[in-house]
Amino acid sequence: MIDLGKHVITELPTTAGRIFKIIRDHGPLYANDIVRRTGLAKSTVSAYLDRLIAVGLLREETPEGGKRRRLKVAESAGYVVGVSLGQTKLSVALCDLEAETIDSISSDVDLIKESPEEVLGRVVSFARELERRAGLGPSALFGVGIGLPSPVDYANGVPVSPPVMPGWDRYPVASFLAQEFTCPVFVDNDVNVMALAERDKGAAAGIADRRGSFVFVKAGTGIGAGIVIDGEIYRGAKGAAGDIGHIGIDGNETLCPCGNRGCLEAVTGARALAARAESAALSGRSPFLAAELERGTVFSPAIIARGAATGDEECIGLVISSGAYIGDILAKLVNFFNPSLIVVSGGLTNLGERFIASIRESIYRRSTPLAAADLVVKKSSLLEKGGTTGAAILVLDEVFSHGNVSKLMENSGK
Amino acid sequence: MIDLGKHVITELPTTAGRIFKIIRDHGPLYANDIVRRTGLAKSTVSAYLDRLIAVGLLREETPEGGKRRRLKVAESAGYVVGVSLGQTKLSVALCDLEAETIDSISSDVDLIKESPEEVLGRVVSFARELERRAGLGPSALFGVGIGLPSPVDYANGVPVSPPVMPGWDRYPVASFLAQEFTCPVFVDNDVNVMALAERDKGAAAGIADRRGSFVFVKAGTGIGAGIVIDGEIYRGAKGAAGDIGHIGIDGNETLCPCGNRGCLEAVTGARALAARAESAALSGRSPFLAAELERGTVFSPAIIARGAATGDEECIGLVISSGAYIGDILAKLVNFFNPSLIVVSGGLTNLGERFIASIRESIYRRSTPLAAADLVVKKSSLLEKGGTTGAAILVLDEVFSHGNVSKLMENSGK
Repeated sequence: MIDLGKHVITELPTTAGRIFKIIRDHGPLYANDIVRRTGLAKSTVSAYLDRLIAVGLLREETPEGGKRRRLKVAESAGYVVGVSLGQTKLSVALCDLEAETIDSISSDVDLIKESPEEVLGRVVSFARELERRAGLGPSALFGVGIGLPSPVDYANGVPVSPPVMPGWDRYPVASFLAQEFTCPVFVDNDVNVMALAERDKGAAAGIADRRGSFVFVKAGTGIGAGIVIDGEIYRGAKGAAGDIGHIGIDGNETLCPCGNRGCLEAVTGARALAARAESAALSGRSPFLAAELERGTVFSPAIIARGAATGDEECIGLVISSGAYIGDILAKLVNFFNPSLIVVSGGLTNLGERFIASIRESIYRRSTPLAAADLVVKKSSLLEKGGTTGAAILVLDEVFSHGNVSKLMENSGK
Repeated sequence: MIDLGKHVITELPTTAGRIFKIIRDHGPLYANDIVRRTGLAKSTVSAYLDRLIAVGLLREETPEGGKRRRLKVAESAGYVVGVSLGQTKLSVALCDLEAETIDSISSDVDLIKESPEEVLGRVVSFARELERRAGLGPSALFGVGIGLPSPVDYANGVPVSPPVMPGWDRYPVASFLAQEFTCPVFVDNDVNVMALAERDKGAAAGIADRRGSFVFVKAGTGIGAGIVIDGEIYRGAKGAAGDIGHIGIDGNETLCPCGNRGCLEAVTGARALAARAESAALSGRSPFLAAELERGTVFSPAIIARGAATGDEECIGLVISSGAYIGDILAKLVNFFNPSLIVVSGGLTNLGERFIASIRESIYRRSTPLAAADLVVKKSSLLEKGGTTGAAILVLDEVFSHGNVSKLMENSGK
């Protein structure tokens, strides 16, 4: 039982966490808003708010022209580091307690050639540099989050059976970083982490007060999905949920590096798409791509989109078929999972709006009318930035869990 | 705040519900077991147990040779009715508060020809007959649950866009029955309901204390799935989740009554299978089936299994290909959802163990090694009975929710 001076709180001790979460999700809010949302007595709410301000988790602000105090997260009461590790790029961001980026550092990386120690060593030095630039003391960090391009055993913070990261299988990423940082470290799959960013600050931010369900799809060199159910990441039995890149297209014989044939990402991931573009250039079927090849252009989704915009039939075909391959697989998942929203991100979105439209059309054509009713399919508004922001949110969700906030308040107590 | 004599309970009022649920899930239990599982003080637990016994929800039993009292659900303190409505069969069961069947009545039904009023009228008269036989008074029923072969808007208790039930679209099933029974009525999709039965009393009963995640597949005339996440049915945005029977097999052109082509259930549902068997008989490819056709046998999965057992190549092929079609679709869903368990039920399981083995093999062959690691695929142990038992459990889950149990205790007064 928490003693808040004359107010004796008889609720379970998670009430502080609950109030804090409401403000985190919907703030700034007036005390009355919280009374309405919780059904708690005004005096109880007021006592908790005073205490949350006293421990430094909330701060007051007076809106312009307003008289009453409005509460919001004391976004500068601490900091978190969000790390996004991709096949070829490392980004480290220093974020405030609302997951807003204060400063960031990126560099190229080669996960096939570099060892985990080298890469994680770089993560540490980038984070230290960011702390230095921001003038932070040694205990300013609440936590570090990192998204990896691999299935992850979340409870233990280790990648499991990464398809393209030699030396990383079960490498103790969380404990390696925790030794350096002396703060909690959380490791998850990169697509899951990006899904969290969409939930709070992206295309899914509007649905169900952060408690909605949706599917996030990242389509780039790899293709993967993050599944969010009632606002929480669904990871599956082995942390492998959402691995849609290796779903097979029946009858397709394209060989995938995984050893199987017809995997979605082997058929239409960014590399496969570039190969198809090159073949269209070499065969002369696409005058646009042939001219680009002549000029030494590297084929990216953006180049193909540019060709499609000029009316090049082959380029248009590549854009539409790419969306159709992905949409056909998603149609099956829509029948199974019946989400209300699918958010698409990743390099292939550079193929343009026609690509999203093709995904959408394939889903609607091939799923049941009821499952597709009111289904929204849209492009991410965050894209690249989702990686570090999502990793920061991963940390904030954990350190600001109901129980943690309440414990924080008790420990700070008299 | 609940006044339990000299014990003042300062926990949230859901504690009674929490204790009751632990006993419901794991009972019979000693008071000490509950102290250990909840972390509550012994005197608090004891006070709650006394009260739960007083209101009639729990009873004591003394194990043979034992001295201390052991608590369990007072299974005869009330009753629920579980209704299973299929395309051709209606079953109504009277169950106790542990969802054990006391008595049941079944009859043929024709959902295409009979109106909702006729069918639901029969449900009411069967239930009345069961009450009469059991000598129950008018307020003995805690609730009625019904599973329908249709997507269901669960909150409103109405079927939505049923594929084969003219007149049932948005028919107010729950309110129709609630008027007759004057007790709560819950309506859900039949496959969801059967999944609940597997969770509590079937193939999934062993996993994670009723809080596990698994996929239940019913493969018969229709093919559908029930998705259980952390012990709860996942229904999706429109109640359409799990509709795997209309997932398309790429490149397959079999026309489905739904208007699409290559739907799983059009290719290998019980009717499609019978048609393929008939064609094998007529063409003479299967001597076994030709002889059966001569004799006027109706082709069922059991007949095909018998042919396979005699070594008839065509029958063996039908069994294996049927499992492979289903397994290929499930492999895609395993990559997406990474369940730890898939339970298979429905008429096609009469194809025998080779059918289950073929499903299993197709899943393992075509999903990623990590997603399939430790995945168990097994046949339901409940089969037909799962329909009414699951409907009873649906009711019990609702009426014994934490909040309801606590309210029940408060209302029953001191």
